Amino acid sequence: MDFWFSIGSTYTYLSVMRLDRVEQQTGIAFSWQPFNVREIMREMGNVPFADKPVKLAYMWRDIERRARHYGVPFRGPAPYPLQDLPRVNRLAVTAFAQGWGKPFVRAAYRHWFERLEDPTRDETLPGLIEALGRDPVQALAAADSPQGHDALAAQTRAARELGVFGAPSFVVDREVFWGDDRLEDAIAWSRAA
Amino acid sequence: MDFWFSIGSTYTYLSVMRLDRVEQQTGIAFSWQPFNVREIMREMGNVPFADKPVKLAYMWRDIERRARHYGVPFRGPAPYPLQDLPRVNRLAVTAFAQGWGKPFVRAAYRHWFERLEDPTRDETLPGLIEALGRDPVQALAAADSPQGHDALAAQTRAARELGVFGAPSFVVDREVFWGDDRLEDAIAWSRAA
Repeated sequence: MDFWFSIGSTYTYLSVMRLDRVEQQTGIAFSWQPFNVREIMREMGNVPFADKPVKLAYMWRDIERRARHYGVPFRGPAPYPLQDLPRVNRLAVTAFAQGWGKPFVRAAYRHWFERLEDPTRDETLPGLIEALGRDPVQALAAADSPQGHDALAAQTRAARELGVFGAPSFVVDREVFWGDDRLEDAIAWSRAA
Repeated sequence: MDFWFSIGSTYTYLSVMRLDRVEQQTGIAFSWQPFNVREIMREMGNVPFADKPVKLAYMWRDIERRARHYGVPFRGPAPYPLQDLPRVNRLAVTAFAQGWGKPFVRAAYRHWFERLEDPTRDETLPGLIEALGRDPVQALAAADSPQGHDALAAQTRAARELGVFGAPSFVVDREVFWGDDRLEDAIAWSRAA
């Protein structure tokens, strides 16, 4: 099953933190696919929270309740939106190509949700990479290269072509399930197929 | 538990069709509270589907899958948005005050989702009322009176004050759960309280 996500999506935190356990419990393998959800949302004029304070407050409360339900840590509202969503996701694509994708995505989310700091800041990103035993200068150069830009754009194009418009989304065959709260529906669909 | 809804909300169809069964299974009594979700959404600049064709297509597919899961009929995408959401909800408030609220809401949703016709049209609404053994002229006069307008406005004000911004929403004490897909979370919350 494909797990489409963008670092910067708040609900994706829940999926990132529980997906390995779900994988063990269900035997379903998830293929992690970073893309630029902000680009697709901008095209669609879809602004779910940023200018909607009541809905934003609800989102944090809902994430808090769901995190508790899943046994995932929650320390309170994290900085939102992230300053540089495209760059951290270019880095994620680079990291997956080099075999350190999942640890990087988890480290970014932990920094964001446990330290409550934006992980995409220039003073933060190199440290996150270095802590994983990777060279931040090389990794950032790759992510910022024309190839790094192209790689994220290709992922975003693939997501758009599938009809993915939000993160996280789970895709079984071409059936799209949008939201961490649709993961169980996607699993049931996958089993019935 | 309070069930806040507007006739005109698509996902509310699922709640309307399964709430009596949930009530029997859980022993939780639901108090049905119509309000004007469109007014609150307009205030918040929240346009979830109407100008977003990809998301709208997803919504229908998601409702179809969820309806199947609940054993609720689904015949395909219904007319959306409804022509006169305020009037049909004024009528719902009137009907609840007179003791025929639930049958009216169900009849409106069945017309919308089973016949795939807008139930708020002038040529449709009187027939729906009459089929319930009520006088359409009297009922519509009450719904269209200043008192009818005030009653829906008061419901909408109460919803807004609770932090309700979408339909359906379930409210336990002052805890808001938004979406038919949060009904089980609301039930768990209510039991833990």
